Amino acid sequence: MKLLRFGAAGAEKPGLLDKDGTIRDLSSVVSDITPETLKAGAIEKIAKVDPATLPAVAPGGRIGPVVSRTGNFIAVGLNYVDHAHETNSPIPSEPILFNKTPNSMIGPNDPVTIPKASTKTDWEVELAIVIGKTALYVSEADALSYVAGFAVCHDVSERAFQTERGGQWMKGKGSPTFGPLGPWLVTPDEIADVQNLDMFLDVNGKRCQTGNTKTMIFGVAHLVSYISQFLQLDPGDVITTGTPPGVGMGMKPPTYLKDGDVVRLGIAGLGEQQQTFHAYKG
Amino acid sequence: MKLLRFGAAGAEKPGLLDKDGTIRDLSSVVSDITPETLKAGAIEKIAKVDPATLPAVAPGGRIGPVVSRTGNFIAVGLNYVDHAHETNSPIPSEPILFNKTPNSMIGPNDPVTIPKASTKTDWEVELAIVIGKTALYVSEADALSYVAGFAVCHDVSERAFQTERGGQWMKGKGSPTFGPLGPWLVTPDEIADVQNLDMFLDVNGKRCQTGNTKTMIFGVAHLVSYISQFLQLDPGDVITTGTPPGVGMGMKPPTYLKDGDVVRLGIAGLGEQQQTFHAYKG
Repeated sequence: MKLLRFGAAGAEKPGLLDKDGTIRDLSSVVSDITPETLKAGAIEKIAKVDPATLPAVAPGGRIGPVVSRTGNFIAVGLNYVDHAHETNSPIPSEPILFNKTPNSMIGPNDPVTIPKASTKTDWEVELAIVIGKTALYVSEADALSYVAGFAVCHDVSERAFQTERGGQWMKGKGSPTFGPLGPWLVTPDEIADVQNLDMFLDVNGKRCQTGNTKTMIFGVAHLVSYISQFLQLDPGDVITTGTPPGVGMGMKPPTYLKDGDVVRLGIAGLGEQQQTFHAYKG
Repeated sequence: MKLLRFGAAGAEKPGLLDKDGTIRDLSSVVSDITPETLKAGAIEKIAKVDPATLPAVAPGGRIGPVVSRTGNFIAVGLNYVDHAHETNSPIPSEPILFNKTPNSMIGPNDPVTIPKASTKTDWEVELAIVIGKTALYVSEADALSYVAGFAVCHDVSERAFQTERGGQWMKGKGSPTFGPLGPWLVTPDEIADVQNLDMFLDVNGKRCQTGNTKTMIFGVAHLVSYISQFLQLDPGDVITTGTPPGVGMGMKPPTYLKDGDVVRLGIAGLGEQQQTFHAYKG
């Protein structure tokens, strides 16, 4: 299934994209896609409904982030060999983890604000995992059973904040609007091999990132299991799994986003996003 | 005011500690202390009520964490000069930030679980700030007006997870039960000088940490302002502000917590906590 949330920011309704590409309103089945509804079996409930019996939604409206009220938005750093190379970083021996802010999550096509003092706002197309069941100390063999689905995530990053301000990376990862997530929450049964999905990202129509999830250093099952050794993953938590090569800081010379730039990105089977970047206006 | 949440985990009610030390039930005034109720003016509403008109609560019951549904639980590293020294770390030129997990928050006297593969579970008494109003790009001069109150936080830490597993510190800071927070949310008007509060922590009755918030490298107002340059602080967000000297990893030889250990900690005017540590039992 391809699930989504449609409507105005903060007032989204749950929806399902049917086989013909029509959005069906799921409001009569579940109230929303949140930690609470996922925990209460929202995915299983939706799976039992015939989409043709649900009201069609007029196309063209806003789409929200695929989940609301996420408790923990975790990101994996340097998880593609070629991206580690382009940032002059060693290949990690274990996953590098940091946090994005849950309140940075926005819809896939919402405008993104370049932070006030930013000089190095950069792009990163990523595969995100949405957790469906509470996971603590789970094995790699069992890990995928804790996954509700997958989505495109734009891990927008401010490189000066991330790497030049002392200490940990989270400073450059959590500004408001830095977490476009969607358009769809795609359930695992729709994806033949999550470790073989093409990815791309264009800036102003020019291809910058080309990748495939098969070049991840640590795959999805490993990441879920690994993270669950350190903290408890709850339904609605999101793990964004790192980016392939082609980010702005790796270009010669490094190139960063400015007011008016348009970024389009996508992952095969998970849909596409497009954001216009705007300078902070106060 | 000294606010608190009392009752069974997950079903806490809001309360107020009156001048005589009696807990008064605030359920008739606010539903709970959460991001939503703080945003809707819970503190101001409570301030208008005469505590004597509220039902008294029988003493001796469980106390929960001072706030529920926190969106972001941020921690500051190496924020006391002497603690930086004891860990052989340089004095930071800017605050070091990392994340704890909101789902690690527990009541001040709840048992703490030592993680499954832990060998280095350590203690840290800290002053926590609870945010009362949305803060983005706020000045240091204005910063304290965004604070709902202060609380004792035990920033329980697993040092091997934090420093020996590659990359960022959050791996050692977010295990379930690693965030005792309370007993009280003390509003700023009750505290003469938040940068002059005595702190202590005992392990099995032996004094390990002795400190005062006056030796913080970066004070409360600076931290709120600083963090708000990188991310948006929302009502209910918690910032725990670093620990004074005396942690287990700084002892010679380093000493860590084991099954059955009892930790008592407190900050002048903010109350005390006491936790028994338990090995993970599966």
